Amino acid sequence: MTLDKSWYTEEWAGQGSAISLKIKNKVHDERSAYQRIEIYETETFGTLMTLDGLVMVTDRDNFIYHEMMSHPALFTHPDPKRVLVIGGGDCGTLNEVLKHPGVELAEQVELDERVTRVAEQFFPELCASNNDPRARLRFADGIQWVADAKPGSYDVIIVDSTDPVGPAAGLFSETFYQNCLRALAPRGVVVGQSESPLFHPDLIRSMHRALRAAGFREVATLNFPQCTYPSGWWSATMAARDTALSKFRQADKRFPTRYYNQEIHAAALARPEFMRQL
Amino acid sequence: MTLDKSWYTEEWAGQGSAISLKIKNKVHDERSAYQRIEIYETETFGTLMTLDGLVMVTDRDNFIYHEMMSHPALFTHPDPKRVLVIGGGDCGTLNEVLKHPGVELAEQVELDERVTRVAEQFFPELCASNNDPRARLRFADGIQWVADAKPGSYDVIIVDSTDPVGPAAGLFSETFYQNCLRALAPRGVVVGQSESPLFHPDLIRSMHRALRAAGFREVATLNFPQCTYPSGWWSATMAARDTALSKFRQADKRFPTRYYNQEIHAAALARPEFMRQL
Repeated sequence: MTLDKSWYTEEWAGQGSAISLKIKNKVHDERSAYQRIEIYETETFGTLMTLDGLVMVTDRDNFIYHEMMSHPALFTHPDPKRVLVIGGGDCGTLNEVLKHPGVELAEQVELDERVTRVAEQFFPELCASNNDPRARLRFADGIQWVADAKPGSYDVIIVDSTDPVGPAAGLFSETFYQNCLRALAPRGVVVGQSESPLFHPDLIRSMHRALRAAGFREVATLNFPQCTYPSGWWSATMAARDTALSKFRQADKRFPTRYYNQEIHAAALARPEFMRQL
Repeated sequence: MTLDKSWYTEEWAGQGSAISLKIKNKVHDERSAYQRIEIYETETFGTLMTLDGLVMVTDRDNFIYHEMMSHPALFTHPDPKRVLVIGGGDCGTLNEVLKHPGVELAEQVELDERVTRVAEQFFPELCASNNDPRARLRFADGIQWVADAKPGSYDVIIVDSTDPVGPAAGLFSETFYQNCLRALAPRGVVVGQSESPLFHPDLIRSMHRALRAAGFREVATLNFPQCTYPSGWWSATMAARDTALSKFRQADKRFPTRYYNQEIHAAALARPEFMRQL
């Protein structure tokens, strides 16, 4: 069958595959200083945001990504108080971070303010905590932000970025990770989205190498399903400044989640055989 | 973007979403007594088989499905010797079962002999063990086969079926599971593919209920990524006649796998929060 124009299609670059979502209508379309931002109402995935034609977030499945980008790192740190989110303009990760009662500061540094303003309009649930007094929304270059940060400023740094091309490429470099290490306090943890285990194992391997070369003591990848991202299977790679990644606070989740829990945290760290051999 | 005719597209029924694979050419197309069988050479997923327009197997990602349909159940049973595969006409599950040196009989009961003959031609790796002296290829109705089986005939039954519509619908019924229970020897285990945790949680819930109602002592669902199946996230639901599903033989994998290992076995049993609440 061939899909007609009532479908939004993203071709997964270089992978000879594509995902399509059936659209009811397009409700927003703008070109910001950085990218094209489009919002669609889909038939079964709720609201969809795309940036330069790539799926960023849908109502239906974003909970898995946002929970897995935030809770494993925050429950690995023994007592996270100061959290930095690089990117994450839809504010879904920020919203999860602020569920942790011990967090005193959650600072989000997104390059493109328009992404956040559009998210506030079309994804109000993800932006529900934007006015939390602990939240700070900055609109600046995250690479420069981390380079300029005072040593030991943060307990957890979350790199909720787009793919490692264009402005986001620098977020996957050894230099950036060295600056993260410096910006982290003792016991600090960094986590970054690391693409698909099936499609991008070389990227995951190079992130492990770069994080270790930057001086992180332990590095581990979390795997999780993410229907609307390439291959439907996604990952985040976590690194600890000076602690262990296999231990985490198991009893401290006192807020509701939809995907994350203790079983899932441990399970996400399991390495498929082909990744053990990388 | 709209995909042109060089793409194969499967619309995920009722889910307002679709996956597409870029095709080099179609190399086979026939209508068997039961269904249309098509084989394509894809650009990046190797050979693709579809049945009535639905993706069954690709070279690139079938290893996850076939390993997860077989090894968790076989390593849960303390000493599986007699294994029945219902469906599974591409022979990939049979091939994994026969990697277990303790297996003495692996009997595959597929309704449509043409699926197996076409697989032998186009997926020789999946059919590599079809001539193993322990393999028996039957072409018959699996529901009837299990109803007719002598009590205690099998140690493990694997239901490697198509979606729960048409001829496969009966493979998800309490009556079928009662017959499986009867056909299993003490310590027996049954496992069946149970669709997508994201798209079909109601099916998974109803399978749990039907398996328990049929008399199985324990029921558990295994989750795993499967890029080319609906949502990219798939599951198999396992039930034990009279033993526990949380324990499995951890040291006995003496053959290579690409996805499955002990860590993955335990991890696949983890329940996402929304499934714990089902």
